[in-house]
Amino acid sequence: MSTLDAVTPPKPSSLPHDIVASLLVNLDSQADQLRAKKQGGLDLEGLLYFQRAANYIAAAQIFLHANGLLSEPLEVSHVKNRLLGHWGTCPGLNFVYAHTNLLISNHQEEENVPEFMFLTGPGHGAPAILATLFMEGSITRFYPEYPMSREGLEYFIRSFSMPGGFPSHVNAETPGALHEGGELGYGLAVAYGSVMDKPNHITVAVIGDGESETGPTATAWHAHKYIDPAESGAVIPILHANGYKIGERTITGAMDDLELACLFTGYGYQIHIVEYGSKSPEEASDHEHDVAVQYDMAVAMEWAYQEIQKIQSAARSGKPIVKPRWPMIVMRTPKGWTGPRKAEGKLVEGNWRAHQVPLPSAGAKGEEFDLLKSWLESYGPDELFHVHVDDSHSGAHNPADKARGIIDSKAVRIIPKDQERRMGMVNATYRDFKPLKTPSWKDYTHPIDEEISNMKAVGEYVAKVIELNPKEFRIFSPDEISSNKLDAAFKVTQRNFQWDPETANKGGRVIEMLSEHTLQGWLQGYTLTGRHGLFPSYESFLGIVQTMIEQYAKFIKMALETKWRGDVAGLTYIETSTLWRQEHNGYSHQNPGLIGSFISLPRNLARIYLPPDANTSVAVVDHCLRSKNNINLVIGSKNPTKSFLTPDEVSTSQYAK
Amino acid sequence: MSTLDAVTPPKPSSLPHDIVASLLVNLDSQADQLRAKKQGGLDLEGLLYFQRAANYIAAAQIFLHANGLLSEPLEVSHVKNRLLGHWGTCPGLNFVYAHTNLLISNHQEEENVPEFMFLTGPGHGAPAILATLFMEGSITRFYPEYPMSREGLEYFIRSFSMPGGFPSHVNAETPGALHEGGELGYGLAVAYGSVMDKPNHITVAVIGDGESETGPTATAWHAHKYIDPAESGAVIPILHANGYKIGERTITGAMDDLELACLFTGYGYQIHIVEYGSKSPEEASDHEHDVAVQYDMAVAMEWAYQEIQKIQSAARSGKPIVKPRWPMIVMRTPKGWTGPRKAEGKLVEGNWRAHQVPLPSAGAKGEEFDLLKSWLESYGPDELFHVHVDDSHSGAHNPADKARGIIDSKAVRIIPKDQERRMGMVNATYRDFKPLKTPSWKDYTHPIDEEISNMKAVGEYVAKVIELNPKEFRIFSPDEISSNKLDAAFKVTQRNFQWDPETANKGGRVIEMLSEHTLQGWLQGYTLTGRHGLFPSYESFLGIVQTMIEQYAKFIKMALETKWRGDVAGLTYIETSTLWRQEHNGYSHQNPGLIGSFISLPRNLARIYLPPDANTSVAVVDHCLRSKNNINLVIGSKNPTKSFLTPDEVSTSQYAK
Repeated sequence: MSTLDAVTPPKPSSLPHDIVASLLVNLDSQADQLRAKKQGGLDLEGLLYFQRAANYIAAAQIFLHANGLLSEPLEVSHVKNRLLGHWGTCPGLNFVYAHTNLLISNHQEEENVPEFMFLTGPGHGAPAILATLFMEGSITRFYPEYPMSREGLEYFIRSFSMPGGFPSHVNAETPGALHEGGELGYGLAVAYGSVMDKPNHITVAVIGDGESETGPTATAWHAHKYIDPAESGAVIPILHANGYKIGERTITGAMDDLELACLFTGYGYQIHIVEYGSKSPEEASDHEHDVAVQYDMAVAMEWAYQEIQKIQSAARSGKPIVKPRWPMIVMRTPKGWTGPRKAEGKLVEGNWRAHQVPLPSAGAKGEEFDLLKSWLESYGPDELFHVHVDDSHSGAHNPADKARGIIDSKAVRIIPKDQERRMGMVNATYRDFKPLKTPSWKDYTHPIDEEISNMKAVGEYVAKVIELNPKEFRIFSPDEISSNKLDAAFKVTQRNFQWDPETANKGGRVIEMLSEHTLQGWLQGYTLTGRHGLFPSYESFLGIVQTMIEQYAKFIKMALETKWRGDVAGLTYIETSTLWRQEHNGYSHQNPGLIGSFISLPRNLARIYLPPDANTSVAVVDHCLRSKNNINLVIGSKNPTKSFLTPDEVSTSQYAK
Repeated sequence: MSTLDAVTPPKPSSLPHDIVASLLVNLDSQADQLRAKKQGGLDLEGLLYFQRAANYIAAAQIFLHANGLLSEPLEVSHVKNRLLGHWGTCPGLNFVYAHTNLLISNHQEEENVPEFMFLTGPGHGAPAILATLFMEGSITRFYPEYPMSREGLEYFIRSFSMPGGFPSHVNAETPGALHEGGELGYGLAVAYGSVMDKPNHITVAVIGDGESETGPTATAWHAHKYIDPAESGAVIPILHANGYKIGERTITGAMDDLELACLFTGYGYQIHIVEYGSKSPEEASDHEHDVAVQYDMAVAMEWAYQEIQKIQSAARSGKPIVKPRWPMIVMRTPKGWTGPRKAEGKLVEGNWRAHQVPLPSAGAKGEEFDLLKSWLESYGPDELFHVHVDDSHSGAHNPADKARGIIDSKAVRIIPKDQERRMGMVNATYRDFKPLKTPSWKDYTHPIDEEISNMKAVGEYVAKVIELNPKEFRIFSPDEISSNKLDAAFKVTQRNFQWDPETANKGGRVIEMLSEHTLQGWLQGYTLTGRHGLFPSYESFLGIVQTMIEQYAKFIKMALETKWRGDVAGLTYIETSTLWRQEHNGYSHQNPGLIGSFISLPRNLARIYLPPDANTSVAVVDHCLRSKNNINLVIGSKNPTKSFLTPDEVSTSQYAK
């Protein structure tokens, strides 16, 4: 079985080939044109060198605790005792990172060129992300303890997944990261949240094919239907169909091109498939395949970029396209690409065996050690890493770039010249917070002898917040905004659903999708890029995203311990229809469990509020919306009751603090 | 805006119409043929009368506390004080129930005709399900306090959503039900679980278009890829795209036929769309539209049935179809169909206003009361319900059928003659439990001085359970069976993924899909229809389905309080990679929260086990797999340790009890 066989999914499906194939975007002629160009064509060398270096550093992090740059012949003693990390997804991530870098660089001289963010669904692929971040200088910028020197890089390699070093999953310590690794499925929704109300941002989101089996991802493919192209940026979703998860084929990996064409056309996208080996004869060498797929990916990324421009330009010139079909890319590259082909007679590259550590016994003399040695040497580390700072080739504009000279200039020249555009340093990912503008909450209180719904009172306050923050505040709710008595919001704004002509292209601040998972992902992406949101829901259904909230709390905990990250707004949840005060639903709608999760979290991160009346509710929600770096749970109530406390009494109570 | 406009989704999409339309299954000629037939054609009268009666009873349950059958002119005083229930989905559910009844009846004389089960995703539609269950005699059979008499039916109508009566959501008290209403999204997965290893069963699953926005549903559309047609039955999924949720258009409701054709073709289905008004001229009367859509649905159901037969016959004769494309139906019928067209100048039928109680002020004199009166009268209750048992028309075969005589025979004649085939009485839904065959657990223990992984020891025991129960036991796991050290299972069985030629059509007992939601749904459906399962997972990721587990616990609690329901096996979860003994993952993979959920549940329902060694682990898993009517959480451990207890010591400990 060759690598090619491994990439190609089981065939055939019984779909009518001629019909369905026409749904796929064909970019062959663009790839041919690019190949024919000499000057101004593809920086193929730059792409290949970048990936060689990034793949080397990724693999080295998993395996080496000494001799990280192979300054001397590899010995068993150089191999880590405990091999941790996931290799399988790494080369694909490096491939996408390289091509995103190239896209940014190709357009960096243009006016109003978007800023790019990078979101890794498979957080296990940290070795790849960390490698590219090191190469672009982001690691050294935020972690001077890893200087851009041979020693610094070796220390960086050794420290991976060791106490004090970077963890084996992407987390808040990772420059550019907006998403805690671990629990899979939310990357795509977070990506869409990150570009809402950021018209000049594009997030490239890599979705693993394992991850794509989760429900949260399966429904987040619809998320573009809530992106207004006039006011928001865009996502380039890239499904990384490398075919296998930890022990089995993946669903999308087992779907052929026709099935994928139908599925993602149905979700509303234009699809282009980039497939390793598809544009080169089967008997071609690995290198020829490697080259062909670079051309494919380069034209695919440029195509995606141009399609986004078309959709956005139309909407921004007042002639929005009805149901715009945003671009997406399906990427079929081998799992563990460039890694060991086989070990102990069994396929590794292009197989589930490449998922985690492909050579688990490499720490002892034997076949696997020999394979590791030749694998690492195959990248040519002596060509990639130099002893001295190589000023002459680096095109350096600043000190960090000079330092990059230890990495061969050919491997770093596709990295954007402007530091602020490198994806580990984009402001939006770590220091774009502006405080919410809030009215005086006392203006929204009521006389204590008036019967008023807590939620109704909060709704009037929230409507004012929407007015004061027309592009910085959103409400995410699973179809319950009116049922939750927050409908005062609709006096000043509306829903935002692009597939409905009644609410398309109108910039509504309320998103109602019946997917708590997607809402939570949007809220996280929106908040971590500096904005503010509110998530009201029935008490019993907010628990659906309990583990997501807990993962987010981990991200915030680590962000607080990460010096270079700025503040982000607190996430505020309001629960209604509580067990203790059922408004109209019965047993099937009762579940007060989420409060238990909040109680078990550290109190600087997670706060719980049970305001007893409308006046206190307004004060509490005001307090929560102004909070930072935490999560807030407010227990609401919908039915009218009299207030217990006057506004002044609330002011002096703990609730207003 | 007419009802027709409301049903038709926003147009257009930019998809190439000619190309995509060919993906849809066209059944026009079959419908025409059926219409042309006289004798042996469609029992149109029976279908329409059934739906009239069912819709009347559904609406009456929501509104009437007296005069339930309109024996006298409706008065304000007959209307309930508190109006509860969801009308919008009811007529669609009754439409599907009617056509499923007709399909069963049409085939009831054939040999080996499958048994049908009915699964309602939108549990809020209980008024519809309860109405049809009453009409077929299932309510009276299980609840003699509601006899088949005018008084019995009036009492049934009055009791809906009142203390002591049926709740407003489908739950364990509902005959035929396999799924707790409330939290949306799991119905489809439960339906697929219910037919695994039941080759002669078909579950008709209605999925609401609100529900279809959830992640769990979005990924469960892939569930058919784990159904081996040789060994298992089939699901007929029916997406009920009535266009609106509680306050907004739905995603699938806003997708046009082409988008839906692509999406569900991509998921792997053949799709036929049944649309109200599509086969009749726009200016046609309501009745003409109503008639046309009955022909469409009847041929659609027959088509689905025949397609299932083809796929199953091929597989069972040893020539399985590669990637079989199972049938599914998209059903566009108006929300609140046959309900009030407008109220207070605003559209109700075919709109979100029909979602819950369409005439909330009908309890006081005024327009809404008048609308309610004419609406209920429009069904002609005096024609539908009779005073005396009407033996002559009922074709009665047994006492329950005789009793059905109070409902006009035209309204009940499409109901299957054989009681056991009526969907509220099918054995598989409530009394099909057989105990698991288990080996002696002591045969799988180890000497106490041997270092052995708890999970490895359990794996050997589980392998034997698989051997002893070749069609009654399955393992559902999110891609971690080997990582969880249960790989001994692969000595006796394999994975079961029909999209991979390596594991297709081989009856494997292990399902690995990276969707905890789908696994949980499958396990529930499989267990509630009498079988047994095991769900191993990492500790941190099982919490993803915490609220599902809690909803399931509610179902079991009510099932135990429901006299006519038989036992079901306990659900057993094994958690590994715990926070306290991390095997190789870090902070991103740590979350011990699920145990807190189990602790808070009643102890007869939820049990937690922390076996300290391999011998105890085997005893505990044996105990759990033999348990009934509960949920079990076993905390596992993967690394080898010495046992503390000899098998005999384990026997006398609490663990073996």
